[in-house]
Amino acid sequence: MLPGVGVFGTGSTARVLVPLLQAEGFEVHALWGQSEEEAGCLAKELGIPFHTSRSDDVLLHPDVHLVCIYIPPPMTRQIAVNALGIGKNVVCEKAATAVDSFKMVTAARYYPQLLSIMGNTLRFLPAFVAMRRLLTEGYVGEVQVCDVRVYGPSLLDRSYGWTCEELMGGGGLHTVGSTIIDLLSHLIGSRAQRVHGLLRTFLQQSGSICGIRRVTSDDFCFFQMSMGESGSGQGVGGVCCTVTLNFNMPGAFTHEVMVVGSAGRLVARGTELYGQRNGGDGEELLLGDVGWVGPEVRDLLPPPHLRGLGSMVTALRHSFQAHEERRSWAREPVATAPTFEDGLYVQTVVEAVKRSSRSGEWECVEVMTKEPDPNHNLCEALQRNKN
Amino acid sequence: MLPGVGVFGTGSTARVLVPLLQAEGFEVHALWGQSEEEAGCLAKELGIPFHTSRSDDVLLHPDVHLVCIYIPPPMTRQIAVNALGIGKNVVCEKAATAVDSFKMVTAARYYPQLLSIMGNTLRFLPAFVAMRRLLTEGYVGEVQVCDVRVYGPSLLDRSYGWTCEELMGGGGLHTVGSTIIDLLSHLIGSRAQRVHGLLRTFLQQSGSICGIRRVTSDDFCFFQMSMGESGSGQGVGGVCCTVTLNFNMPGAFTHEVMVVGSAGRLVARGTELYGQRNGGDGEELLLGDVGWVGPEVRDLLPPPHLRGLGSMVTALRHSFQAHEERRSWAREPVATAPTFEDGLYVQTVVEAVKRSSRSGEWECVEVMTKEPDPNHNLCEALQRNKN
Repeated sequence: MLPGVGVFGTGSTARVLVPLLQAEGFEVHALWGQSEEEAGCLAKELGIPFHTSRSDDVLLHPDVHLVCIYIPPPMTRQIAVNALGIGKNVVCEKAATAVDSFKMVTAARYYPQLLSIMGNTLRFLPAFVAMRRLLTEGYVGEVQVCDVRVYGPSLLDRSYGWTCEELMGGGGLHTVGSTIIDLLSHLIGSRAQRVHGLLRTFLQQSGSICGIRRVTSDDFCFFQMSMGESGSGQGVGGVCCTVTLNFNMPGAFTHEVMVVGSAGRLVARGTELYGQRNGGDGEELLLGDVGWVGPEVRDLLPPPHLRGLGSMVTALRHSFQAHEERRSWAREPVATAPTFEDGLYVQTVVEAVKRSSRSGEWECVEVMTKEPDPNHNLCEALQRNKN
Repeated sequence: MLPGVGVFGTGSTARVLVPLLQAEGFEVHALWGQSEEEAGCLAKELGIPFHTSRSDDVLLHPDVHLVCIYIPPPMTRQIAVNALGIGKNVVCEKAATAVDSFKMVTAARYYPQLLSIMGNTLRFLPAFVAMRRLLTEGYVGEVQVCDVRVYGPSLLDRSYGWTCEELMGGGGLHTVGSTIIDLLSHLIGSRAQRVHGLLRTFLQQSGSICGIRRVTSDDFCFFQMSMGESGSGQGVGGVCCTVTLNFNMPGAFTHEVMVVGSAGRLVARGTELYGQRNGGDGEELLLGDVGWVGPEVRDLLPPPHLRGLGSMVTALRHSFQAHEERRSWAREPVATAPTFEDGLYVQTVVEAVKRSSRSGEWECVEVMTKEPDPNHNLCEALQRNKN
């Protein structure tokens, strides 16, 4: 039986998620927004019976057994940890820092019977499901290079807010790059060991962001990841991933993920999958676009994210439908979903890329295994602000 | 009046160049090949009256006033310098090292009345001529990012040779990357100050390259160039160029050069130019493919290089036609051609990228201003071989 859902957030993902949940048969009982007004407006629009700006009102809502958290990154950790603490299943977006992600991992480990997955949805996109299967089957041979490009219009909100602030989790790397980092480790089955990156903020001010305010989050980011290499030397052995993110391209949306191997290559362009074997007869369409069959929501998210989100919601339905009890869920349908541990890894890579952009050097990816001394953190943050 | 031409080389560029020269009205009097047999075969095929494997026989040929040098990089310097020394005009491909390039610059400076240009031909491709004009006119606003991708099949010769050897000027970076480095500095009018790169050799052996032989030249290369920045900090300010070269893709040829600015973007795909202004109505085709009108040679070179070469030969004709005397040429038609100084700059960037791939760090591009102590070079080469 499907659990009642409480949704945190009034942004574009939340706006898309609610109709998707409803279409799959989930009842959305409660909506949280940063202001009563925002929450009220959207609740009315989406037909949600209860809205609030107090998080506990959603978390303690008796009909809510699944909490979906799509809010600014700095607020995510607290809500996610609290939700797990009072026995709710959690789907959430990334946190703002590795320390926050680590706290979420600790909570998730403490309540293994509760569902806790990251809402990075590209893993569920059928094109990437098929790509992963073909990679396992050896379609490209030995994987050599992954080359990813995401180009699009600005990610900034019209008014000044967290999207403008690097330290609050704004910027292309944190918002979009994190979904790519997660996807690549999922596709090729190994993790980044060293990264090198460059972040730029080309648009530092705009019509509505002016005066003393300045955008600090990146609108151009390039990074390389050296995945699961043998360890010796600079970038020798292992798979080399290059990722280019450019959000200075109004009117465009390019989402291309290419995996090149010794025997051929696979390319996902948008939601479609193409492949070419070496010596074969040119590129073949392996998975076409089947057209969108969900509710009318399409313009708020780029197609790969929208389709991925839709498939994730379907997987959630399968997971919960397997059991009679509202809170219980089956692991298998959501087995490929990113865990909070994956979320911590992704956040660690994001921070290593930022470090590399400052140092100009390759930086190691070392996933936190215990919570750092908070005083040490403070020192680091102060240090960083100085630069 | 058009000068008689002597061609060095029997590779694919030389094979294409000769018919192009002939079609423009140049008489090709002499052909040099590494062996008498190779030279004889190609001379017969292309209708060249004289062939030899001794370079002086071409250089001293009384009817040859223009020498075109398209041979393995380690041999280029000597022929080019000798040709200038006996008063011949020179068009040539890149040398193998910055030291060689420097010697060519010295010779070119010594004979300013002789034509001495690098045969990197992308500058002459109509798409890039138009792109440069549009950039000057402000089509994209302030240039922020250049993003270049060249994907194709292996660059290796079937049998073991210089293309397999990094130190002999083989590999994607040296062969193709150098044309892109030259093109980008020409397009945006500034030079790389710092570079970061990663080279890989994924295919180290093949059916015909085996045993103790191993390919050392790169088949995958990614590099970033920080162009004309203000100087302080890591990658802050200035234009950021990212270049991805992948020659592990049999059956593919992708040649895409994108320039993104504050007001729009321009993209050359193959030989076509597209543009989009921010706020405009999507992408517009600015320069389509006009179809190949030259002699039947197309399959030996990728289309952008073939078309570029064709346009360069036409420019050469205009340059020489302007004068009655066979050795005289007008500067204007070839004013945009890369000089030997440009060749030295390109070679310096190539070597900085290789250094960066070994060190893992950003490397400064410092163009040689005096010839280094040859003993010092020897030490460096020995040092490098040890690593």
